[in-house]
Amino acid sequence: MTSHKPAATDPWDLPDVSGLAVGVLGGTGDQGRGLAYRLAVAGQRVSIGSRAAERAVAAAEEIGHGVRGLDNATCARESDVVIVAVPWEGHAATLTSLRAELAGKLVVDCVNPLGFDKKGPHPLVPDEGSAAEQAAALLPESRVTAAFHHLSAVLLQDPAVEKIETDVMVLGEDRADCATVQALAGLIPGMRGIFSGRLRNAHQVEALTANLIAVNRRYKTHAGVRLTGL
Amino acid sequence: MTSHKPAATDPWDLPDVSGLAVGVLGGTGDQGRGLAYRLAVAGQRVSIGSRAAERAVAAAEEIGHGVRGLDNATCARESDVVIVAVPWEGHAATLTSLRAELAGKLVVDCVNPLGFDKKGPHPLVPDEGSAAEQAAALLPESRVTAAFHHLSAVLLQDPAVEKIETDVMVLGEDRADCATVQALAGLIPGMRGIFSGRLRNAHQVEALTANLIAVNRRYKTHAGVRLTGL
Repeated sequence: MTSHKPAATDPWDLPDVSGLAVGVLGGTGDQGRGLAYRLAVAGQRVSIGSRAAERAVAAAEEIGHGVRGLDNATCARESDVVIVAVPWEGHAATLTSLRAELAGKLVVDCVNPLGFDKKGPHPLVPDEGSAAEQAAALLPESRVTAAFHHLSAVLLQDPAVEKIETDVMVLGEDRADCATVQALAGLIPGMRGIFSGRLRNAHQVEALTANLIAVNRRYKTHAGVRLTGL
Repeated sequence: MTSHKPAATDPWDLPDVSGLAVGVLGGTGDQGRGLAYRLAVAGQRVSIGSRAAERAVAAAEEIGHGVRGLDNATCARESDVVIVAVPWEGHAATLTSLRAELAGKLVVDCVNPLGFDKKGPHPLVPDEGSAAEQAAALLPESRVTAAFHHLSAVLLQDPAVEKIETDVMVLGEDRADCATVQALAGLIPGMRGIFSGRLRNAHQVEALTANLIAVNRRYKTHAGVRLTGL
């Protein structure tokens, strides 16, 4: 458990998160694998969760660096911070089924609700406003934040890429919780975790992924977002 | 008029825009003034429009660098590219009243529909999806793009700031029109114009301004957005 002391006034003064166990739900997907790999390489204690424990175990072995593979419920229960990296289609059902295990946890939603058609990607608008607000609605006993939306799964998973030049926009209602997530993001070389608003401003951050996909297609790249002026 | 030849395959191959007259509607506001100043300093022929011509004339004199002040209708009529920098509250009414003058023009919407309350800024969702899509609906004979959403009016207007490190996300349906806007953005030192998707993906780009305001408040800065990986 992280403390609930108010964070210091200096927005760059972030807590020591080295003792926190991080779980990644949907950790067998590309985004989840990539985040688990990067955080484990940075020295964090990481487990990945999947509906089928054996799939998580197999993926964890491939990732290496001490990452453990568990079923989703055990992954949630044994973690202090739980990153939600499941497909949007399974988002509500997965979180609903894990409500008890996620109670009291710091939940980091990184899901981007997108649709695809002939004209390319476009955002979907959940009834709650965003995936993060859906998580907050479904998990009233958890502390829900949103982050890690814009990271390229390709870059995250490529061990030849030592540094990923991008910022991680972190959203949430509680300053200390956001600071914890910002500190975790900052463990990955090239990244900074930047507080970027309350959960009601999460939709556009999630949806911006559609624009980054358009950029990737036009410029043949894996685009990221860096905030300038800080 | 810009040509409608398909743009070259190289996304960095942008047209020569030096001959285009740029008009800025709402050019007496901070954002409009700032854009007019930067484009005029870069050598572009620029006029600013206002409902009252005398206010536009006064603002243009303050800006200098050859900027002309006109009433909105004349500004639109005499420009090839028209940047819409009016307050969101007057967006629909202004565009409706200028439909004839804007016919055939390349319109660049940079309006961010935002609301403010005790918890800070939050996006408003126009019925059409975004300010840019509202413009496209109201101006069926114009070529509507969206850009220049995330620029700090403070930095734009400060002559001591020589370079503004940020990218300009450009959205639109027509590749040549987007390339023209990208080229205009690239005239301002430190900026690149980056194609970032179709108009249906404009809402989240407009709305992201709420997040940048949150960043500005927390970090005491004028934040911008740089796309990495390109």
